[in-house]
Amino acid sequence: MTEHTGYNVAVVGATGAVGQQMLKTLEEKDFPVRSLKLLSSPRSAGKEIVFKGKTYTVEEAAPEQFEGMQIALFSAGGSISKKLAPEAVKRGAIVIDNTSAFRMDENVPLVVPEVNEEDLKGHNGIIANPNCSTIQMVVALEPIKKALGLKKVIVSTYQAVSGAGLDAIEEMREQSKDVLEGKEIDPKVLPVSGDKKHYQIAFNAVPQIDLFEENGYTFEEMKMINETKKIMHDDALEVAATCVRLPVETGHSESVYIETDGEGKSVKEIQAILSEGAGITLQDDPSTQTYPLATTSVGLPDVFVGRIRKDLDKNNAYHMWIVSDNLLKGAAYNSVQIAESLIKLGIVKEGQSS
Amino acid sequence: MTEHTGYNVAVVGATGAVGQQMLKTLEEKDFPVRSLKLLSSPRSAGKEIVFKGKTYTVEEAAPEQFEGMQIALFSAGGSISKKLAPEAVKRGAIVIDNTSAFRMDENVPLVVPEVNEEDLKGHNGIIANPNCSTIQMVVALEPIKKALGLKKVIVSTYQAVSGAGLDAIEEMREQSKDVLEGKEIDPKVLPVSGDKKHYQIAFNAVPQIDLFEENGYTFEEMKMINETKKIMHDDALEVAATCVRLPVETGHSESVYIETDGEGKSVKEIQAILSEGAGITLQDDPSTQTYPLATTSVGLPDVFVGRIRKDLDKNNAYHMWIVSDNLLKGAAYNSVQIAESLIKLGIVKEGQSS
Repeated sequence: MTEHTGYNVAVVGATGAVGQQMLKTLEEKDFPVRSLKLLSSPRSAGKEIVFKGKTYTVEEAAPEQFEGMQIALFSAGGSISKKLAPEAVKRGAIVIDNTSAFRMDENVPLVVPEVNEEDLKGHNGIIANPNCSTIQMVVALEPIKKALGLKKVIVSTYQAVSGAGLDAIEEMREQSKDVLEGKEIDPKVLPVSGDKKHYQIAFNAVPQIDLFEENGYTFEEMKMINETKKIMHDDALEVAATCVRLPVETGHSESVYIETDGEGKSVKEIQAILSEGAGITLQDDPSTQTYPLATTSVGLPDVFVGRIRKDLDKNNAYHMWIVSDNLLKGAAYNSVQIAESLIKLGIVKEGQSS
Repeated sequence: MTEHTGYNVAVVGATGAVGQQMLKTLEEKDFPVRSLKLLSSPRSAGKEIVFKGKTYTVEEAAPEQFEGMQIALFSAGGSISKKLAPEAVKRGAIVIDNTSAFRMDENVPLVVPEVNEEDLKGHNGIIANPNCSTIQMVVALEPIKKALGLKKVIVSTYQAVSGAGLDAIEEMREQSKDVLEGKEIDPKVLPVSGDKKHYQIAFNAVPQIDLFEENGYTFEEMKMINETKKIMHDDALEVAATCVRLPVETGHSESVYIETDGEGKSVKEIQAILSEGAGITLQDDPSTQTYPLATTSVGLPDVFVGRIRKDLDKNNAYHMWIVSDNLLKGAAYNSVQIAESLIKLGIVKEGQSS
């Protein structure tokens, strides 16, 4: 039941919101899959999933499942990654991990192929996929950094509930219905399923994503700050983030302020720089009300940028609006892109006939 | 049918989203109303509204309706204010105008009583009520400016649809229902009823409020920038804004970055400054997930502030989350507060027995 060429691929968390998009992306990109193993928690084991017309039964993830795998895509939560990613590596697989478990580990490359593909060469078995809100931002900022230099970034996010998983989507939909019908609601998932209190997400804006750290920032905010510096190889880059969850199903939006080095440029020049940037689609024309929207980004792998304005006080500062499908470029698509880069760079070898 | 003491008050736009909140606020504050005249466009004339147990019939707004009025609260759109506010002034009324028609007129005080009540003394008949998103921000920033000095403000807004009127609320509710049921939608009101294209607001975040100016900013963004400088009497204050409409019925939220003068302070010191500030309620304790939310601000006149964090790069810079009911402190409540200030300062005289 396997192809003769290609890679033996395991997907851990295959039934989740991101896992499903990973499979869709592997299909759509016609990724050279030799054999596929779909793994999950015991709760979801036994479910059936169709991939390229063939039905697969999801199996419980366990160390021995990674025997013979070349690539293991993980998206089943940090604790599962911590436990099983080293087991997969021990058995010869390269792990591309979508959780935050290893992102800030200095032995683990944190990769957005448009920005730092070369970092893959230094891998030790595990490669981390950055946080969704970080990925789309660095894709947009990288060409500006290359062309002008980048000094400071202040971002306020407008994040979709699908980033918190299928339960969060379900809660938002049901709760929205209840609020519209004037019914009582009983929030149980958002803003953070693992935190003590839960708040209404329907028709609201909740300034908490992930738990709080000691310094008053959330983990999500600190992820954006630290991951951006790591991916862009610039510890001196000033980054600040405020992360907010919205009643949007899919598509993260970001209001981003940046200060560059050197002389100020015109909006047209910034647009020209961005339109040449890998993975970026410019949607920026106030005269026709053209700007990126969460709803129109869904299902597309691009990072959309618009609302580019010069700051009115600082000549080399700019504002922009960055939108992308958080399940695709923010997660699944970037993971599969990393796998493609591993092939392109000759880092991963094809599977052997057994 | 009139009280013997108090003021003859006209409310223009009495049937609108803000007009209704004005009447509610006059009632709740037990404002000394001697007689009340409810005015509107021809479309809404004839409607009946109950105020303090008495039923009033809404009449078509016209110049002669302002005879004998001491206070005229306008909230029926800029063109009606431009036409009728001077007529009201001519007849002896002081106009408190909730539209943008006169806000940047140098002969018109633009007033948030907690910030610049004294400016009322220089009025020439018309007093402007600032834009909703500006009001809540300056209330929060004023005590910081007083205590520390203020150099720079960068705000990204999360604005409710009620700021765009009852039609916008209706569109959001109906559209949300349709999206949840998988029906086709046909946006007609938002983001800006007077602009060419309309976009889905349900489960989306739309980075356009009001029309675009030549410089790529929207009028809403330029209002926040210019009005903040005028109210705070500081043309050198650096202000930048990105304004975004959300599927929230009422309650504007704002992610605000500020740089102060002088030495950096601790979060506790900033909290102490804010908790002493007029009109502010601090909701800021990460350990109990306490922060302001649009949904919990509704119906309350306070400006709620939380998520206060020190910037991690600049010692005298801070981030915060500012929320208020855009129809109350952002509009109706502030207008009635202005009327109260006019009484307190002896600027407006009580009505005469006729």
